[in-house]
Amino acid sequence: MNANHEDELQTLREALQHRLDQLLPAGEQQDLVYSAMREGTLASGKRVRPLLLVLAARDLGCDIEQPGLLDLACAVEMVHAASLMLDDMPCMDNAQLRRGRPTIHRQYGENVTILAAVALLSRAFGVVAEAQSLSPACKAEAVAELSTAVGLQGLVQGQYLDLNESGEARSAETILLTNELKTSRLFDATLQMAAIVANASPQARQRLRCFAQDLGQAFQLMDDLADGLNGTGKDINKDSGKATLVAMLGADAVHQRLHDHLRSADEHLSCACDRGASTRRFMHAWFDKQMALFSQNRISSLPEC
Amino acid sequence: MNANHEDELQTLREALQHRLDQLLPAGEQQDLVYSAMREGTLASGKRVRPLLLVLAARDLGCDIEQPGLLDLACAVEMVHAASLMLDDMPCMDNAQLRRGRPTIHRQYGENVTILAAVALLSRAFGVVAEAQSLSPACKAEAVAELSTAVGLQGLVQGQYLDLNESGEARSAETILLTNELKTSRLFDATLQMAAIVANASPQARQRLRCFAQDLGQAFQLMDDLADGLNGTGKDINKDSGKATLVAMLGADAVHQRLHDHLRSADEHLSCACDRGASTRRFMHAWFDKQMALFSQNRISSLPEC
Repeated sequence: MNANHEDELQTLREALQHRLDQLLPAGEQQDLVYSAMREGTLASGKRVRPLLLVLAARDLGCDIEQPGLLDLACAVEMVHAASLMLDDMPCMDNAQLRRGRPTIHRQYGENVTILAAVALLSRAFGVVAEAQSLSPACKAEAVAELSTAVGLQGLVQGQYLDLNESGEARSAETILLTNELKTSRLFDATLQMAAIVANASPQARQRLRCFAQDLGQAFQLMDDLADGLNGTGKDINKDSGKATLVAMLGADAVHQRLHDHLRSADEHLSCACDRGASTRRFMHAWFDKQMALFSQNRISSLPEC
Repeated sequence: MNANHEDELQTLREALQHRLDQLLPAGEQQDLVYSAMREGTLASGKRVRPLLLVLAARDLGCDIEQPGLLDLACAVEMVHAASLMLDDMPCMDNAQLRRGRPTIHRQYGENVTILAAVALLSRAFGVVAEAQSLSPACKAEAVAELSTAVGLQGLVQGQYLDLNESGEARSAETILLTNELKTSRLFDATLQMAAIVANASPQARQRLRCFAQDLGQAFQLMDDLADGLNGTGKDINKDSGKATLVAMLGADAVHQRLHDHLRSADEHLSCACDRGASTRRFMHAWFDKQMALFSQNRISSLPEC
């Protein structure tokens, strides 16, 4: 990863942070729900999804300065933040730590957490519907993509499968489906939104769907490999007693699968975006960094996806 | 209320039920989240919001047969259903009964309830974005209206104020603001969606906003008056120990306020919709029916709004 690439990512992250700050509403008063929304969204995160959206749009020929692009990227990050807040709840994963801090419900209580997540989700759809300088047709299509990624064919179903398969024997097939629903579907919506803004061809959009599929599986495998290690900013050994591919196949086989998914992702991406390689460079830099941390057994700075 | 009007409402209710059934997704499998979504949405309800949307659109000159109208009406009902499911949760109002049945979390558990509500909310936005025979501009504007009604300037903030003011002294002003956020804002989005489809003038839309304001306050006053009575299908004396306008001013004064809001609502509606009076007739029939039930002290069939 060269310095220019890292500088550019940092500039983009700052632009995202600034725009997220602007887009989070003030409400009738600055109360606990308002604070929980901000804490859940603005606290440090690697912004993988919004960065992917912007970089993929550029690779597809879009002007990166188009303000609507940043708005869509912020909407995806709001959805991601809301899903983490709810997944951490006592009646879900009962997590204590997230990004190195107490989870939102531990800071603000369960009712405020639910309300903040609902407000974030509905704000995300509103941000897409009012995104700057995008045509109404783009906005409507982007709302539909986001809706599919969140609902019963996406994050919701993934979390339900994850909850109900915990601690039980489950097949590799079920694990792959859960990973797809929990992770690939929101990557898919993210990349489809980039394609919508860039007015990409149906062929490119289909390739991006396949890319999202591989990328989501790779991310989830990386997450499973990281479980049990300190310094992830999350609870450790959260998957203990739960059937994961690591428990089922061993770490080496999972590393191999991860490698295969990344190679396949690479091929799909090359076919979808022939104008550049910002997305590919970003993805490889991210995974290379994680791999290096694993191999050096220096996990203390492993970032959250 | 004449028989034709009641027949027409019944026909509309059946059309809504049929379309809601079609629009609720099947998911990867028909699991508990799927069942909770259906139970929370399809179980008996009076469908006040979706009926209002369709009737107001007709009064504004719209063809009632336009399929997009029914889709928007279903989206509003999904949002309403999701908000009731979450409001009833143990960490919120801890309600045991809704529409005469055990609340959703008592039937399906807290985690499934949260997931079903999130899936319903995101489905609602998707239904608007994909509504039949509506222009992309209409869809984007309708998504923005719905987003505002749900978020920190609407239902979420109303529920937060309601939770945090419970059992404490609160001013009449705070109660009115809570009622507005909890009830008027979704009525507002409902009527604005009708106006968007009907391509109503800015003047008419402003009048409809005032109408929604009065209607929401009137509904909430009726709800407060009904508290403590059997047969509402909800927990009784839920507001016991909580400052309401009934406790503060007495039932007679609240009846008077309700009457004043309805008269004001009437005026705003007449100015907004000069082509007909379906909405007015529906509203008056509904409130007359409730009033009659109060005065006869026969509350056993008091419908849920």
